[in-house]
Amino acid sequence: MPYVNIKVTREGGPDGKGPSAEQKAEIIAGVTELLVRVLNKSPATTMVVIDEVELTNWGMGGMSVPEFRAKRVGNEESKAPD
Amino acid sequence: MPYVNIKVTREGGPDGKGPSAEQKAEIIAGVTELLVRVLNKSPATTMVVIDEVELTNWGMGGMSVPEFRAKRVGNEESKAPD
Amino acid sequence: MPYVNIKVTREGGPDGKGPSAEQKAEIIAGVTELLVRVLNKSPATTMVVIDEVELTNWGMGGMSVPEFRAKRVGNEESKAPD
Amino acid sequence: MPYVNIKVTREGGPDGKGPSAEQKAEIIAGVTELLVRVLNKSPATTMVVIDEVELTNWGMGGMSVPEFRAKRVGNEESKAPD
Amino acid sequence: MPYVNIKVTREGGPDGKGPSAEQKAEIIAGVTELLVRVLNKSPATTMVVIDEVELTNWGMGGMSVPEFRAKRVGNEESKAPD
Amino acid sequence: MPYVNIKVTREGGPDGKGPSAEQKAEIIAGVTELLVRVLNKSPATTMVVIDEVELTNWGMGGMSVPEFRAKRVGNEESKAPD
Repeated sequence: MPYVNIKVTREGGPDGKGPSAEQKAEIIAGVTELLVRVLNKSPATTMVVIDEVELTNWGMGGMSVPEFRAKRVGNEESKAPD
Repeated sequence: MPYVNIKVTREGGPDGKGPSAEQKAEIIAGVTELLVRVLNKSPATTMVVIDEVELTNWGMGGMSVPEFRAKRVGNEESKAPD
Repeated sequence: MPYVNIKVTREGGPDGKGPSAEQKAEIIAGVTELLVRVLNKSPATTMVVIDEVELTNWGMGGMSVPEFRAKRVGNEESKAPD
Repeated sequence: MPYVNIKVTREGGPDGKGPSAEQKAEIIAGVTELLVRVLNKSPATTMVVIDEVELTNWGMGGMSVPEFRAKRVGNEESKAPD
Repeated sequence: MPYVNIKVTREGGPDGKGPSAEQKAEIIAGVTELLVRVLNKSPATTMVVIDEVELTNWGMGGMSVPEFRAKRVGNEESKAPD
Repeated sequence: MPYVNIKVTREGGPDGKGPSAEQKAEIIAGVTELLVRVLNKSPATTMVVIDEVELTNWGMGGMSVPEFRAKRVGNEESKAPD
């Protein structure tokens, strides 16, 4: 009976305002299947909660995400999403 | 000095958009009283945070709540709320 | 299908090392019953996780719990548990 | 690679609707610096998530925050913010 | 830069005391890959924390896990793990 | 009345088994002071919980921390702690 909490930034998806219902359903199905396969957990009692977090409420590297991305672009370090 | 976090789906309540302020206050009072009674905790330093979560962000049985309920109705398994 | 997380300090109980299994079962039953009664939630899909936290890992008032209690005793403010 | 979650009531800030982006960035920078200084953690892999919580969803002393403040004013106990 | 928290009961694994390091690494790799595939997140900044929880600290259906399983066996309802 | 949860790997400190009580008290004092200074929160009702997490239970970059560090050393990318 696992409990999974997934936090992602509220962005992307079909309208740029966060993952679509289909994407969230795919995440729920995928992480449940993973726990069944690796740990033999019951899917029936596996609970998943997804939190979508505003960009200014998320920090990495001592900076909020908007600052973090602005600085990274300046450094030309990486084009990868985060 | 307990800390309690309660996550519920954002639905029900007087306008169908989640628990009313009165219902949330009753939950806060009730869980605090429970910890005082069973574990002799101080109510003064008991903190409770309630999170209301969109239905598409909550999963059970490998499905999001809307899928989970649609399938359950199809199975005629249960009329109970969840 | 609520999810409840309750954090308490690891102390008290029959051996001073935290709540007994019976006390934890009573907390689980009590908070589930509360959510059924106030919000009409299904007990079958209500999940509760209790975390027991070492005293030095918990802070209140800018102090760890051992410091907080030592200071409170000095102030003779209160005899209540916390 | 610490993870920090900070929950505050959604109030205050420039428009009364919660901390400004600048205040949240200052919190992110400050807590990251603290973990670097005290525990020698790497800032690059320190993640911070701030949750802003509605007043009626937060409880203290067995009451929701609006009730808690109304009662405190009645008692003239304290003028301090909380 | 997602954050994932996975809570499972502390049981199973090679010695019955919880998932092995290999199983936990497989969970970490799998959920990270899922977020990359479905939401195009960067694996480099995806953080995963697994919590293993004692059986008596976990509740479902208003009962602790030991009670829940004892009752289920009595009902012969299901042989599935949970 | 903020609530802060800080998760760190269980390592370092005086005996290599995690932060000392003094270090944890310094973290508690520091983050409380930060919230008082930036957001004018009351220290009296600020709660902090520190979780120490086993290295094999923490993942970054799709790998558990032991794998992550072994690979990083191989790449000679960085000497910084994490």
